[in-house]
Amino acid sequence: PRIRIGSEAPNFEVDTTKGKIDFHKFIGDNWVVFFSHPADFTPVCTTELGAFAQLEPEFSKKGTKLIGLSTEPVESHKAWIKDIESYKNTSVNFPIIADDTKEIAFKYDMLSEEQLQNINSGLVPTIRSVFIIDPAKKIRAIISYPPSLGRNSAEVLRAVDALQTADKNGVVTPIDWTQGQDVIIPPTVSDEAAKAKFGEFTKHFNYLRTTSLK
Amino acid sequence: PRIRIGSEAPNFEVDTTKGKIDFHKFIGDNWVVFFSHPADFTPVCTTELGAFAQLEPEFSKKGTKLIGLSTEPVESHKAWIKDIESYKNTSVNFPIIADDTKEIAFKYDMLSEEQLQNINSGLVPTIRSVFIIDPAKKIRAIISYPPSLGRNSAEVLRAVDALQTADKNGVVTPIDWTQGQDVIIPPTVSDEAAKAKFGEFTKHFNYLRTTSLK
Repeated sequence: PRIRIGSEAPNFEVDTTKGKIDFHKFIGDNWVVFFSHPADFTPVCTTELGAFAQLEPEFSKKGTKLIGLSTEPVESHKAWIKDIESYKNTSVNFPIIADDTKEIAFKYDMLSEEQLQNINSGLVPTIRSVFIIDPAKKIRAIISYPPSLGRNSAEVLRAVDALQTADKNGVVTPIDWTQGQDVIIPPTVSDEAAKAKFGEFTKHFNYLRTTSLK
Repeated sequence: PRIRIGSEAPNFEVDTTKGKIDFHKFIGDNWVVFFSHPADFTPVCTTELGAFAQLEPEFSKKGTKLIGLSTEPVESHKAWIKDIESYKNTSVNFPIIADDTKEIAFKYDMLSEEQLQNINSGLVPTIRSVFIIDPAKKIRAIISYPPSLGRNSAEVLRAVDALQTADKNGVVTPIDWTQGQDVIIPPTVSDEAAKAKFGEFTKHFNYLRTTSLK
């Protein structure tokens, strides 16, 4: 693939519902959740964009910016946003990219097998991609769902939280981890160093030690 | 990428903790959750495999088989399984693939940018990939997380549930949907056909109609 875990997020300049952006400048020193939706004025997408708009303050508290994308022009996005805002009684404050040349969808692999084969046809709906990008502009996590399957907004927030907690504290997070639960001390840290850094910890195996963050 | 939403899952023959398998024969008429973990005897992986082992009966009820993978031999997996079983007080009944040639990790893009560049070095930990594969052997959803980030087992189960519900009922599912909640009638179904098929529905917009499944 063009993009893997650890790849640098490809840069681009593009028009959005909030004006032209240079993607790397948009990222700046923030974390970014970059996600595509298949098409404006379609049902699952309306529920998704509404949910992300409602959750934006939570992402904001974590220094995380949201940005959407589909392969339609700005005017289409702007007309559709009115529906989203009335349906969820919210306001969509993050930009939605107008990728009407499909360049970004191609660069970021936001296409299904079938869509890739038809990329030169008129309408190319994107899949439901999510890229979590860190301030170093590296791709840290990717979720790819088909058009029929609405995402899980809480899982996107949890993944951002887990990645930030890991980076900040030099730990890793177990399956199903949520804020406040015990974290894992990486095997590269000695017991002595772990004690100095984290205080108490539980040693389940030599390689599996858990601790709570103060 | 070699694998996108809608691609056929590439076939392979390989040794596992439950004997040799042909992957397409293993899929058979089932849904499959195929997931990789970075390495045996590592902490996050132990919590993950334990959680999936505990959830296997839930997947089973949905006609869904689990299968794991890392780039280590069967003997390593078998020794490590004892730790998983004692840590989570469960038993690991699904096979774990011994991809010690790294062929499958390469075919399925289970590698980070850095790992791909070092694929010919000795140890190549895989990323945390999840592929949801349907009985037609098509890739329906993909999740790719880095080694530091434990997955969300409930989200994998929810995604399987949503895909199966969509296929069975000719509907699609909104963001954050869980079993029992309202589903969406696709815009390709007329109001008349929707009424005949689903009975009552709510029309939020022409393109957004929700209904409950009996």
